[in-house]
Amino acid sequence: MSRDRAILDAAAAAFYEKGFHGVGVDELGARAGLSGPSLYRHFSGKDEILATLLNEAMDELISATVPVHGDPARDLRRALEHHIDFAARHRHLVNIYQREVRSLVDPWKRSFNRRRGQYTARWEALFAQRFPDLGDADIASMTQACLGMVFSLSYWPARALDGVDINSLLFELLSRGFESFEPS
Amino acid sequence: MSRDRAILDAAAAAFYEKGFHGVGVDELGARAGLSGPSLYRHFSGKDEILATLLNEAMDELISATVPVHGDPARDLRRALEHHIDFAARHRHLVNIYQREVRSLVDPWKRSFNRRRGQYTARWEALFAQRFPDLGDADIASMTQACLGMVFSLSYWPARALDGVDINSLLFELLSRGFESFEPS
Repeated sequence: MSRDRAILDAAAAAFYEKGFHGVGVDELGARAGLSGPSLYRHFSGKDEILATLLNEAMDELISATVPVHGDPARDLRRALEHHIDFAARHRHLVNIYQREVRSLVDPWKRSFNRRRGQYTARWEALFAQRFPDLGDADIASMTQACLGMVFSLSYWPARALDGVDINSLLFELLSRGFESFEPS
Repeated sequence: MSRDRAILDAAAAAFYEKGFHGVGVDELGARAGLSGPSLYRHFSGKDEILATLLNEAMDELISATVPVHGDPARDLRRALEHHIDFAARHRHLVNIYQREVRSLVDPWKRSFNRRRGQYTARWEALFAQRFPDLGDADIASMTQACLGMVFSLSYWPARALDGVDINSLLFELLSRGFESFEPS
């Protein structure tokens, strides 16, 4: 594992436990096995580390919204399955995103918000292709409702996770729910 | 409006804008039109104010989970409609809850967590009555998924809210989604 990766993973754990403002650069370095100020050879500071974590997540999520099948139902299904799987595998990272995206500062904030806008637009395009009768505002709402359910995984208690096939439960709930918006 | 109410409303706005840790007692007092330390005649401090806000919300949410119809489908429907309506009317308060529930300290933290446990148990009882074939873990997951979608309203952008009948959109998505778990 690269040193950068070690720092990012240590930071993700620390931000999850203590919050972005609850942990200092020295502690991040120590958790990653670095001594003194050598973390600064890898990142300019905490802000860049948070931005890098969130951008990595965004890279993966954006790639899952690219239509590849040329079929609206299959493309929406692919995005949904991938997102549920991502949220289930990266619950701590999603939790950090939800709590700490407001902690981003410029220039990272500006570029992240731009990418987040592109990401949302891609989801909305998937829904719009699938449900061509719905207006823009309804499409935007369905996108938020869908992502809201999927990413809520990040704060579910263990008893709602252990022994449950989360992927198929969420997929069934959402894809059946979408059916109520199909043209009759 | 009582002085207590003015303080609570001013605090809700301030916590939403700046976060619990980003605002001091002096600012809360000033926003509520109090001078100097007179806020302390009403509350012991910021911790009690946050706890009071969250407990007020919990009071209303718990009352909406009481089965009143003696019919599982109607009782679940009532709870769902009420929660969607609550989340749509109190987006800022729900947002504060999601970001700041970790900021609660004892003794408020302990008693709030106990009440939150009761609240979740009531929701699970509604689902268990409606879907008697599902196991406990699936019931717990459905509860989290449902509340996760409803309370995600607190961070939807304006373009997903304006001009949309949020109440019926969320109700349709969820109640149709639940159908996939009915005994066939």
